[in-house]
This record gives sequence, structure tokens and C-alpha cells, in this order.
Amino acid sequence: METMVPTRTASPRNVLREDLPLPLCVLRDAVLERNIARFQRYAEESGVLLSPHAKTTMSPALFGRQLAAGCWGLTFANCAQLEVARRHGVPRVFYANQLVGAADIRYVCDELRRDPGFDFYCLVDSVPGVRLLAARVADAAPGRSVNVLVEGGLAGGRCGVRDVETAVAVAEAVRVAGPHLALGGVEGFEGLVQYRDASRREADVGEFLGFLVAIAETLDGRGLFWPGPVLLSAGGSAFYDLVIDRLKSARLSRPHQVIVRSGCYLTQDWGAYAGLLGDLHRRSGSADPDLEPALEVWAQVLSVPEPGLVILSAGRRDFGQDSGNPVALTHVRRGTAERRSLRESGWQMAAVSDQHAHMSAPPGHGAEVGDLVALGPSHPCTTFDKWRTVHLVDDDYNILEAIPTYF
Amino acid sequence: METMVPTRTASPRNVLREDLPLPLCVLRDAVLERNIARFQRYAEESGVLLSPHAKTTMSPALFGRQLAAGCWGLTFANCAQLEVARRHGVPRVFYANQLVGAADIRYVCDELRRDPGFDFYCLVDSVPGVRLLAARVADAAPGRSVNVLVEGGLAGGRCGVRDVETAVAVAEAVRVAGPHLALGGVEGFEGLVQYRDASRREADVGEFLGFLVAIAETLDGRGLFWPGPVLLSAGGSAFYDLVIDRLKSARLSRPHQVIVRSGCYLTQDWGAYAGLLGDLHRRSGSADPDLEPALEVWAQVLSVPEPGLVILSAGRRDFGQDSGNPVALTHVRRGTAERRSLRESGWQMAAVSDQHAHMSAPPGHGAEVGDLVALGPSHPCTTFDKWRTVHLVDDDYNILEAIPTYF
Repeated sequence: METMVPTRTASPRNVLREDLPLPLCVLRDAVLERNIARFQRYAEESGVLLSPHAKTTMSPALFGRQLAAGCWGLTFANCAQLEVARRHGVPRVFYANQLVGAADIRYVCDELRRDPGFDFYCLVDSVPGVRLLAARVADAAPGRSVNVLVEGGLAGGRCGVRDVETAVAVAEAVRVAGPHLALGGVEGFEGLVQYRDASRREADVGEFLGFLVAIAETLDGRGLFWPGPVLLSAGGSAFYDLVIDRLKSARLSRPHQVIVRSGCYLTQDWGAYAGLLGDLHRRSGSADPDLEPALEVWAQVLSVPEPGLVILSAGRRDFGQDSGNPVALTHVRRGTAERRSLRESGWQMAAVSDQHAHMSAPPGHGAEVGDLVALGPSHPCTTFDKWRTVHLVDDDYNILEAIPTYF
Repeated sequence: METMVPTRTASPRNVLREDLPLPLCVLRDAVLERNIARFQRYAEESGVLLSPHAKTTMSPALFGRQLAAGCWGLTFANCAQLEVARRHGVPRVFYANQLVGAADIRYVCDELRRDPGFDFYCLVDSVPGVRLLAARVADAAPGRSVNVLVEGGLAGGRCGVRDVETAVAVAEAVRVAGPHLALGGVEGFEGLVQYRDASRREADVGEFLGFLVAIAETLDGRGLFWPGPVLLSAGGSAFYDLVIDRLKSARLSRPHQVIVRSGCYLTQDWGAYAGLLGDLHRRSGSADPDLEPALEVWAQVLSVPEPGLVILSAGRRDFGQDSGNPVALTHVRRGTAERRSLRESGWQMAAVSDQHAHMSAPPGHGAEVGDLVALGPSHPCTTFDKWRTVHLVDDDYNILEAIPTYF
């Protein structure tokens, strides 16, 4: 088994001193620690289990911190990610996806057979899918049931049954497939609603969560769940407050546990999730959870070829753009450690190449060739996956640890 | 030094048989070999040198094939890429970027000192940039000059001088910086023009190439180049025919060599570069170079949750979207090896999540849970960089080699 313990560098190198080639992806260690502690406490005080979506970082060093803080399990989305988790000793996995492929199912069953301590949950959303999974599990003979949850889906969205009737048929198929499969609960992903018009998001999320509860109450009424506590899970990084409220209020004949799966609380961001956290705070009338952005991409000024045009050494291969371009955070004059904020300064990412950001900057921007600029990405998932190594830094940008990712 | 020789698998696993978890990124080996041979021949018959942009694949196994086919050197864009190249023994590097960072310059100079066979070229575009580079080279004492080319840039574009007068000032600064720097030629990247309106692209490229020639002729007239042959380089993967014609026709007092740098000829694509190659064939009235798409992402049908909606197990973390979403190529019924073309079938990628593609498919699409679907990406650069391993396959999708990438 590979270790989750990262390499701690001997004498600290410093980002601002150009001790390493740029661009670099850095995580501010103190911010990260605060986010981990705050979100864990938030989940515990809310009376729910936390199984963070770990596809965000795919970094076993960060998995280790999340598990050490007390999270119930970790969430993954495909077999390649699962293999990384298992190689690094993650004991409980919520596989927030349909489990379909022959090789994927063989791998899961091999792990279930090999390690009695491996606790695994995946999703089902169709009768043919249940039959395929059950047949492949039967062939692979894991020696115990594979735990499944019925996935409910948004109309026009992704996977998941679209009505309660289909959920019942799927659950009945799971019963028929016993002892290969065991039905532990109901799952859904409400996060796709974040791409809808802001005025209808809350109502749409509420309606969707009501649908998940209706599935759970119906399957419970028909005695289709396993004997243990029923698991109800939803929750990306945008609406977990609504998820907690609604899923906890389900009326089942037996105890149930709610599992939320936010992955982005760890680092927050400077765009999409920053805005969504603001919405959440407004809804709840509270600043809890108080999460701060931890992720930055540091680049260098390569050229100032025209007045008002600053070319940086980081591009679409270094940060995500799917939820908007990064914002300019900080300017450091080459050879100094003085940080000047670029927030509200009028700097804008006007265009992006594979390896360059084309920044439009106001007159008097003061940037020169060799200066350093920090960028704040939106949507951490698609920035993490650009990097094989992420550098943990202290508040002065000394490098504390170089932690590997396994995308 | 790490080897460029990839692992050849013992008994072939097959993609269509689900021998491996999906999604998978595959390269069709026979197509790749034809593209490499055809483009090398095209460059040789055109009388130019080929230094393919190797940031496209970052795969030393493919670097090895390109070098074995006879390319002059390989092109890279930043220091992290350069380190991969050098660790894998690439002898000649065209660094198609400004070289600015302290750590980057130290690394280059260390390599120049360590290995007399290392041949290196980078770009300069400003007097402050030249002074910074020269000072840092002086500190690092590589024991020989660092070769530079003056970069000419497009107005509103990226790096590069915007007028001949600045080019002269930059070249004069290089002369002043001797013996730390040596001026070998002129470079530009015309490829940004591909994002402009189709009706003006050719004229804009022609004008830009004329500007590069004007710089070269002026610097030549002033005796600012080194004594060797003058190097003139441009050429992404879109307009290399125009680059070859125009740069070869430069009138210098001494011999000059033209270097083209296409990276995407290796795999072509199913979108942006497919269209641009069509334009090139129309311009030249010839089918030369006859390049075919080699890159495919294979995914599995996870769910058919609504009529006409097929959810696949590959998403924005598995393919690039910056030049448009991938197209649907092939459907394989689970458990068979029969391939049905999806070109012109009406399948469309309607939406994309991190790990899922949401395909809209026409009535009677015939896809079921567990079936396989191949996707054809646009812009190879941003698909390669999603993968740590790319699988070379034969025409029956047996896996020939699992080759690592080093992004």
C-alpha cells in the first residue's frame, strides 16, 4: 500500500523568490486546515455524515487530512479514482456513479473479497443496469453483497430514475438480485441546478430533494431496503444546507442517516463556489460554514508587448475555465516579497492559450517582465487535475510540502 | 536518464472486450505511424526543418518516434516540459517561449554546462527581457552562449515585438549581452489567427509572416545575427503551408533555414484541426499532407435515463472542450466487437460534467447500459493532458502499448 504521508521538504523553498519554475499550483496550508476543521464541525453540528467528493483533489495527502478530521468516508466517481483510493488505504468509498464496466466490477469485487474492512456503496438507476451489475457480481464472487443506492435524477439531467415508479422497479430488481446486491438507500445529485437561472435554483433543488425523499419513503413503505439504517445522500458543494434540511426530515419507519458529499469545501474557490457560498450564507442568515479560498496558481510576467497587455506563463493547461476564467489576485515585483492585491484593480483575463494567460491591465498597471502574478481559479476540480504536484505553502509562500495528485 | 521505450504488454488486452476500466484514451497505432511518416516527408519535400511542438503529447514514447522519423528537434513551451524532455534524452529543444524565471534559466544553463550535446534555442521580445536573461545567464555560467531568436507578435495577440524598430532594439540588446546570448534568427506564432473570422485568416497570416520576414531582413542588413545560418520559424498546426512558402522566400545575405513546429499533425483531430487541414488542402489544391485522426476516447453507457438521452462515463476531465466538444464516432454493443459508425447519426454532446458526457441521441439510437461509445476530440493538446497513460491500439482495438505522459 502506498503511503498517504507526503514528502516534507528539508529547507523551505519560496515561491516569491522564484526558487522553482513557474507556473505553480499552491495551496495555502493554514486556510486548508481551517476549511477542513470548519466543514467537519458544520457536518457534525448538522447531524449528518460527511463523505467528501475526493475526485476534486485526487491527492492522498489530502484524503488523509480529511479522514483524520473525522469524515465518514470518501466519494469517488470512477474506477481509476477508486484504484487510487484503495492503493492509499481509503477504507470506505461512496462511489457516486453507476457501476457498469466488466473490469470495474471485477476490481470492486476483488477488493471486497481481499479486504473485509473495505466498505463500498455504489448507485443503480435502471433494471437493465441492476441485472448487468448482479450478473457481473455473481461471476466475480466477492463473498458478500455489493451495497447499492437507488439514484434519483433531475429531468434533462444526468443519471438517475426520473419517477418513483421506476425507482420501485429498480429496487425490486435489486431484491431479485439478492444476495449479490443489497439496497442501502437513495441518492441524488442536485448540483446540476447551479447552472440554471438563479431565481429558480432553490425551488428546483427543493423539488428534487422532495423527489428523493418520496423515493425513500415509498421504498421504505414496501420494505425494499436492507435491515440497517437507510442512507440518504445528496449534496455537491452548492446546496448542502438545503440537502441537510430536507433529507433529515424524511419520514421513514426506521432510522436514517444523511450523507453529504461536498468536495470543494476543502479549497473553496474565487468564482463559482465563492458565489454559491454567499448564496448559502444569505439563505441561512449565518456565516457558517466560514470557508476561504485556498487554491492559487502563480505565474510569471513573460512579456508586456503592448500597453495594457500583460502575458503570463500560465494557461488553459494550468487552470480550469469551465466555470469562468481565474481572477487576478496578487502582483509581486520581481526580487521583492511585497504583495500588492490585484482584486478590484481592473485586471482581466482577456484570452487564454494553452500555456499563456493574456491579461488586460489598466494604465499604470506597473507589471514588468519577470514579476509574479497569482491567479485565483473558479471550480477547483478542473484546476487540481492540471497538476501532478500541488505545493502546500505557509502564509509567506514558503513551500511546506510537495503533494502528489493521481488523476 | 529515463528510457523512451514503453512497456509492451504481454498478451493483448482489448478495449471493446472491456478488459480495462473505461474511459480510456486510445491512439490508433497504424494511423499514428502514417501521420508521422507523411508529415516528415512533407517537411523534407518542402525543404524545411521540422521541430514538432511536443507539448501536445508530452509522451517520450512519441518523442522517440518523431525523432526516429528524422525531425530536427522538438519544441516545448515551459521549463517543466523541458525537464521531461531532457530526462528522456531529447538532444535539441526549440523553447517556443520567453525564458524568464530564475529557476528556469538556472536549469537551462545547468543542462548546457552538463551536456555539450544539448542544443537549445529560446525567444526574446523586449530589451528588459534580454537584460534579465543575460544577467541570469551570466550568474549561472553555462560555459557557452544561450541561443535566442527575436519573437515577432501579432497586434492584440501574445508575446512578441509589434514593430521592426523594437525588434532592432531587442537584437541590439542581445549584441550588447554577448557572449551570454547569441542571436540565431526570428520566430513568430501565426496560429492565433485561427480564432479570427475565416474570411480574413489567410490575409492576416500572410501579413504577419511578411512582418517576420521584414524583421529578419532588417536584422540581417544590420549584421545582428550570428555567423551561422539564420533560423526562421513559425507554424502551428493550421497554416504551415503558408509559413513554408513565405519564410523560405526571405531575402537574406546568408543562407537561412525554415523551421516549422506543428504538434497536432501526429494525431490530427475530429474538429478544429480537421477543418483547418481541409482549408490547407483547398489552398494547395492537393491532399498533401494526408493526415488522419488517431485519437479517440472510449467510454461506456452508464444510463439511458430518458428517451434520447445517453449518459457516458467520460467528461470534461477526459477530453478537451476548448475547440468544441468531441463528436460521437462509434457504438459497440456490449459483448460484441461490432462497430457501428455514429458519424452523421445525429448524436450530439448536449452537456458535459466532470466525469460524464450527456449525449442527445435520435429515436432508435439503440444504445443500452454497458455499451461502448467512442468519442473523437477536437484539439489534441487538451485531450492528451487529461491522461497519464495513453493506450496504443491496433485496428481491432487490441492494446499494443500503454505509454505514459508527463504533463
